[in-house]
Formats: sequence, structure tokens, C-alpha cells
Amino acid sequence: MKIAVDAMGGDFAPAVVIEAVATALKELPDVEILLVGNLPKIQYHLEKARLKESPRLSFVHAEEVVEMGEPSTNAVRSKKHSSITVCAELVKAGKADGIVSAGHTGAAVAATKVRLRMVPGVERPALAALLPAIGGKFILVDAGANTDCEPLNLAQFAVMGELYSKFFLGIENPRIGLLSVGGEDVKGNALTKETFKILSKMPINFIGNVEGHDLFNLGADVVVCDGFSGNVVLKSVESISHAIGYWLKEALMKNVFRKAGAVLAQNAFKELKNVSNYEEYGGAPLLGINGVCIIGHGASTAKAVVSAIRVADGFARNALPELISKRVAECGIATAAHIHETATETSAEK
Amino acid sequence: MKIAVDAMGGDFAPAVVIEAVATALKELPDVEILLVGNLPKIQYHLEKARLKESPRLSFVHAEEVVEMGEPSTNAVRSKKHSSITVCAELVKAGKADGIVSAGHTGAAVAATKVRLRMVPGVERPALAALLPAIGGKFILVDAGANTDCEPLNLAQFAVMGELYSKFFLGIENPRIGLLSVGGEDVKGNALTKETFKILSKMPINFIGNVEGHDLFNLGADVVVCDGFSGNVVLKSVESISHAIGYWLKEALMKNVFRKAGAVLAQNAFKELKNVSNYEEYGGAPLLGINGVCIIGHGASTAKAVVSAIRVADGFARNALPELISKRVAECGIATAAHIHETATETSAEK
Repeated sequence: MKIAVDAMGGDFAPAVVIEAVATALKELPDVEILLVGNLPKIQYHLEKARLKESPRLSFVHAEEVVEMGEPSTNAVRSKKHSSITVCAELVKAGKADGIVSAGHTGAAVAATKVRLRMVPGVERPALAALLPAIGGKFILVDAGANTDCEPLNLAQFAVMGELYSKFFLGIENPRIGLLSVGGEDVKGNALTKETFKILSKMPINFIGNVEGHDLFNLGADVVVCDGFSGNVVLKSVESISHAIGYWLKEALMKNVFRKAGAVLAQNAFKELKNVSNYEEYGGAPLLGINGVCIIGHGASTAKAVVSAIRVADGFARNALPELISKRVAECGIATAAHIHETATETSAEK
Repeated sequence: MKIAVDAMGGDFAPAVVIEAVATALKELPDVEILLVGNLPKIQYHLEKARLKESPRLSFVHAEEVVEMGEPSTNAVRSKKHSSITVCAELVKAGKADGIVSAGHTGAAVAATKVRLRMVPGVERPALAALLPAIGGKFILVDAGANTDCEPLNLAQFAVMGELYSKFFLGIENPRIGLLSVGGEDVKGNALTKETFKILSKMPINFIGNVEGHDLFNLGADVVVCDGFSGNVVLKSVESISHAIGYWLKEALMKNVFRKAGAVLAQNAFKELKNVSNYEEYGGAPLLGINGVCIIGHGASTAKAVVSAIRVADGFARNALPELISKRVAECGIATAAHIHETATETSAEK
């Protein structure tokens, strides 16, 4: 499989991306990489990383990059030669089988939606974030691709999450929960109440509403929500984890006994950091678009980018987009093609 | 001030509530308490806690209690003699100045909304949760009273949060942020985009959108959101905090060095637990109703209930409901009385 890697995306790009590519070439012998970016600008980093020539590595020039503060639509409007847009075009032209980018999430959504379109039957894409819980991991979908959703969108997200969980985490019959504010089906907002009805009728393992409380106890294997709630949850959880780390450090530095204790137990703190460091988990697949695209956290490390390349390779091999299209039809929740085309156009114009 | 305390509300009621009342009578010499509950049923606990007779303590019998699994509206329909409804009636009759309950949140909202009505100019009540952040505390409002909101509701919540922050946390010019998915004003969902416009025009210290990332760094003193998002954030954050505690314990128990380290640093872990234990913070005021009502976390300890009684006393002394009504008018966002009456009726009928 050939993976187009956005050299310019991420807070520590291009350095960590190039470092990741060097590692991926060693660790993933079946993967070919197309490194996409402004070649003159990354030359220094290529040399510094001593990225060796490889028959499995090629370079594609992209003049621009969509910077983090820019509107998402710049990827398809004013910056048509940006690295993420070039990545999407490589997939469209059949020159690459998947994309990895740790850059502007909205730009990646816009570029892939417009260039690659949606898989038949799906109206909107969703970001699927993999999160740690006591006893396992769970998928939060949509973690931020769509701020306003309809019930049918959420039903389609449920299918995407189900397939991700099944084929890539190996969960046989994933428990699918709907993020809400109370366990009973009468609780929730207008969106979740309607979505509850649709999910109940689908041939999936729908376990009902799950509350915020249930998330990190592995209350469900797949948690379905609109992208506003999902993004807010994801980022709030990162924020409190960071704060807890800060408070712990502060408390441990208060006197000499605690400091000694902290030294003795230092590996425990490292382990804790690894468990809760979901930035390391290799990025969130953007599901529902007609192609494979893995979006890394802005603060992705090289390890995270390597992991994202591995996931992109796996998704491409298993033809996840086709699986999604088939399963959405099977569940009776496919969106008619004309609606889907219109919706895509409208969103791209925003 | 006389505070009606719901003896039956909370996972550990009536025991912890009675324990809390005993402490409050000692610690808060100016507070009178009306303990409301099923008197025969709580007799044993009263004796066990050796709750002494006091001229500042009286008892009010309430036959029933709205259990956690029941619909909220039972408080105003099938269980009109429930402890929370009796509390609301005591305030309505001028026999109490405020309510404290760690019971069913929805039932407390329904009982107070219907019995006490809203303050003039406010359409819906909001739960204001006080949360810890690096360097201080912030208020999340609405933390769960309303699952579906209009922009004007959020603007009114902003005012409630502002007054809470100003008069009870002593923040002079509280920074008010709108919970959203991106810092720029163009980002968010339909609700936040409209709300942004209203907040921008109000004579408050509106600092724009705040993301989940900003919350626990004290990105704002007051974070405004709809009750669905707020509740989901609140509970997800509790859930991850619990999971982090679990992982830390697990990591510390792995070998003898770590165990020794954990013993040396044990007070640090206790301190950490105290900081992040917002269950202890004494409950969330239900703002916007025409009366004072503090709702405790279901898992409230006696300490938390004492703290809630202290807050209720403070709110009643400062006549917070009147302050809210005045400030909403001042900000030009008062809801017309007829809308407010209709909305209240409708909600109660749900």
C-alpha cells in the first residue's frame, strides 16, 4: 500500500513527520511512502534526519500549507496546492492508497470531502477517536468533523465505529452506545432522542444511552455523538488529564519525603503517562469519505505518526470505505445519492 | 437564614445528610435548618448521629421521595408530597429561604420551576458547576438543567454565571467564555454561532469561544454552554479522573520500590484527590429560579452537604435571584413574561 504523508502537518512538522517516515520505512516493510510537502523548505530536515533513499520512498512537491488558524475551506479554495489537497489528489488519481496528516483537521476534512467525495450511502464523514478506558479502549465518533448533525448522520457514524472496532480492534460484536445525559431512553436532547429510535431498529449491538460517567469505565466499545459534543469531550478530557498531571507533580515536590517517594515510583508515573497519552494513539481515522485518511493530533510525536501510517495501511488493505458503504445499506440507513451530493457541495461552500 | 435540607436526597441519604446537618448547626451559627423527609424512616439515623435538639433545627415530614430512576416530573405529578417538593413549598410559603438537596437533579429542577417559578426576565434555570483548574476555579453553566437551548437561554446563563463568580467567588470582572470547538468566532455549531453574536453585544467581559482544551487551564472564569454539552463534559471529566486514579494506583502497586515510593508520597496523593474531588465542592446552584436551591452531587459526602448549606445561606443573604433578574434586564436580554410563563408550563408538562 502507498501512503501519502503530509510533511507539513502538525505542531512539530516537518521534523517529527520526517523522523516518523524514517522509522515507518524500517518497521513497515510493505508500506510505500509518498512524502508530500514543500521540498525546498524541508530539505534541511531531510538531511538532518538522515532519511536514506529508499525504493519505497518518493517525494511530491506541494507549494503551500493550510496553517492552523486558517479557515478549513482554504484547502479547497485559496490554497489548492496545499500539502493536504495534494495528498487527496494523489489518492483520487490512484497514486496513493491512503493519507496521513497531523495538520489542520478541518482542512483535511474539506480537502478529502471535496476531492474524494463520500462513500455511496454516507452523507457526512466522522472523526473516530480511540480513547483509553479501564480494561480496554473505546471509539468516540464523531470526535469533531461535524458540529451540527441529523439523527441519520449519527446512525451512519455508529456503523463506521462498529466496523472500525470490529476489523481493527478485533472486537467481535462491539457494544454501541449513544452519548447522552441519562441512561433511560427518554433522556437526552432532541437529536439523541430521535437517534435512539433509529439505532434501536438497526442490526447492531446497540446498548442504549451512555453517560459521560460510563465512558472511561468502558461502558461501550463505540460511543456515538455529534462532532460538537465529541470534540468538547475529547478536549476537556485532555485538559483535565494535563491538570491532574500538573497537580500531582506539584504535590510531589512539596517536601523531601514526597520527592524521595516520587523518585522510587518514577516508572509508575511514566506508565501512567503512557496509558493516558492518547496523543500517542496514532490519530483519528476520518471515516465515511471515499478513501483512507488518518488525522493525527496536532501535537503528534514521531511515534504517533508511525502508528497513524500503520493504521492507514491497515484500513487501505481492508478497503474500509467499501465495507462502510455496504454496511450502511445493510442497516437500511443509506443516504440517497442526490442528498449526499448536495450536502457535500453545501458543506464545501461554507 | 432558614435552609430547607432534603434528608432523603443522595446516594448516602439520609445518613450523610443528618451528619451534615449536625456539623452545619455547629459551624454555621446563623443558619436555621428545616430537615425535610420521612420522619419515621429517618428516626434511626437521627438517633445514631446523636443529632442534638437545637432551637435552630426543626423537622418537616414528607411522605415520599423521588428515586433516582424516576421521571423528573414525578416531583410535580405523582409524588406531590416528595421531600424535594415539600422543600420548594416551604420556600414558596416564606418558611424557608433556600433549599439544599443531593437527590434527583431533574426532580429538583421540576419542583422548583413549577412551585417557585422563574425570576422575572429569565426563561430557563441553569445548573452552575464549580470546577477546579490550574490556578483557580471556574464555573460551568449550564451543567445539565436543559438539554436543548436557544441562544437567548445561553446569554441568560452567562449573566447567572457572571453574578455567581462576582459575588460568591470574588472575581471582580469575570472572563466569560462560550464553550465551542474552535477559538475563532466562525467556529462552533448553529447554537454557539448565534449565541456568540448576542454575548458580544452585552456589557459583560466576554472573551469569545473557549475550547475544551482551555477549561482546566482557567481559560475563562465562567464557561457558558447548553446543558447537554455541559453535563457530558462534567461527567466525562469525572470519569477520566477516576480512571487516572485507578491507573496510578495500579502502576504504583507493581513492585516493592514503587510501593515504598507510594508510602513516602502518600500525602501528595491525598492532596491530589482533594483538588480534583469536585464532588466535595458543595453542589451546583440552580440559578434562574425564583428562590435559592443548591443541588448536591448524588455521591455527596457530609462535608459536601455542609458546604452546600453554606452556599445556600450566602445566596439567600445576597438575594441572588433578584440580582439575576436586575442584571438580565440591564443586559437587554430579559425574556418577556408571557414567553416565560408558557415555557415554564410546557417544560413541566414534558
